[in-house]
Amino acid sequence: MPSIKAFVFDAYGTLFDTYAVAAAVEHAFPGRGDYLTHVWRQKQLEYSWHRAAMGFYEDFAVVTREALLYALATTGVKAAEDVIDRLVSAFDRLALFPDAALMLDTLSGYRMAILSNGSPEMLQALVRHAGVESRFERLISVDARRTFKPHPDAYRCAVDALGLAPAEIVLVSSNGFDIAGARRFGLRTLRIERVSASALGAVLADPQHVDARAMFMALRSQLESHGGIPDYTCMSLQEFAVLAPSILAESNP
Amino acid sequence: MPSIKAFVFDAYGTLFDTYAVAAAVEHAFPGRGDYLTHVWRQKQLEYSWHRAAMGFYEDFAVVTREALLYALATTGVKAAEDVIDRLVSAFDRLALFPDAALMLDTLSGYRMAILSNGSPEMLQALVRHAGVESRFERLISVDARRTFKPHPDAYRCAVDALGLAPAEIVLVSSNGFDIAGARRFGLRTLRIERVSASALGAVLADPQHVDARAMFMALRSQLESHGGIPDYTCMSLQEFAVLAPSILAESNP
Repeated sequence: MPSIKAFVFDAYGTLFDTYAVAAAVEHAFPGRGDYLTHVWRQKQLEYSWHRAAMGFYEDFAVVTREALLYALATTGVKAAEDVIDRLVSAFDRLALFPDAALMLDTLSGYRMAILSNGSPEMLQALVRHAGVESRFERLISVDARRTFKPHPDAYRCAVDALGLAPAEIVLVSSNGFDIAGARRFGLRTLRIERVSASALGAVLADPQHVDARAMFMALRSQLESHGGIPDYTCMSLQEFAVLAPSILAESNP
Repeated sequence: MPSIKAFVFDAYGTLFDTYAVAAAVEHAFPGRGDYLTHVWRQKQLEYSWHRAAMGFYEDFAVVTREALLYALATTGVKAAEDVIDRLVSAFDRLALFPDAALMLDTLSGYRMAILSNGSPEMLQALVRHAGVESRFERLISVDARRTFKPHPDAYRCAVDALGLAPAEIVLVSSNGFDIAGARRFGLRTLRIERVSASALGAVLADPQHVDARAMFMALRSQLESHGGIPDYTCMSLQEFAVLAPSILAESNP
């Protein structure tokens, strides 16, 4: 097994909080912010999977807009074009998760990149808005091979961009499908757990009160059962920052 | 445009009601039947999409089991192997939707087949249990090309099995992603709407009461916004049975 040369981070849901758009959605559609935000994100993922399976690529900004249109249509809400434009552009100003900000403050001396479904423009906007542009060697978009995760070509983009072998790269992600796809392609994988099985169990404790947020957490927060076990698991990106030196040392005996 | 030669039906969610397993799930996990059934079905679809995108095929019975294991894990419930076997096998005894039974009672004189993600064994079991084996010329499983809908090869299975051109086949489905994939491949498409936009709007009317069932309906019942408009839309399979002669006549001037 070669030693680890780079850490490659997923963006949406790992470094950046997709729920950060909820305030803008709530402002536009009072009372519906939580529901619409969760359906929007879920459909954004579904559409990326469908398009990867169909071989029918469009830029992730298009996918993001289509998913929002679906979410809005479920409630029968009519939205003006400029409101939709504004919400889609809110995806370019997502906040870093607090543990991602802490990690980027402390971790240095490693090759670090982003590998994301986001288009090059979306990724540029994200890191610039968060002021973390200088922390990443490369912003790698799946757009280079016109597909989405978990298609193997999405992960090939990281290998192409970094000039490394798959096993020299650790994909760091909170998204179960991303861990599954990266493992299948041959990258090493590190899962950021964030929502433990027992924390999710507590959210779902009362079967009579499973709301949109609980359903979203149930669908999205756990390891996928088709994906195998990642090489490493950390509770948070902050924990990852602490463990990174020993992960590297262990891979490089 | 060539004239229509055959109607090909989706099985799960179009002819057969996947919610029919809920009683068995509730019996095994009291109070959790509704939640677990919806998460199970949603993950079954997600895993079929992921596997189609990854090019990592396993029989749909394997996918069905993996999805159930995920759903159970979200609640922290431990289930014995024989309970899991029994629930997975309940997927082979799904009830026909009432409108599907009515359609099959009345519609005759057409070439009719099933095109499904289900394995050949699962499809055989389904139609035998429902007593409708004789109504279909062919039970076409995507297993022939080892992928899942909406991958183009899934639809190619229908063309292969029936010896028809794509535009001579109408894919009849309630599943939005199925309409999208079939259209993209070049089949004609007929959507069974079942849940109208206004019916869904009523279910979602109170944003404070969006439960597991409402979230599932929101995610699964509407036309996907990336998929374009189907050639035909019927409210139900019963309506389709009434309209079938004029659909055929119109295509064959």
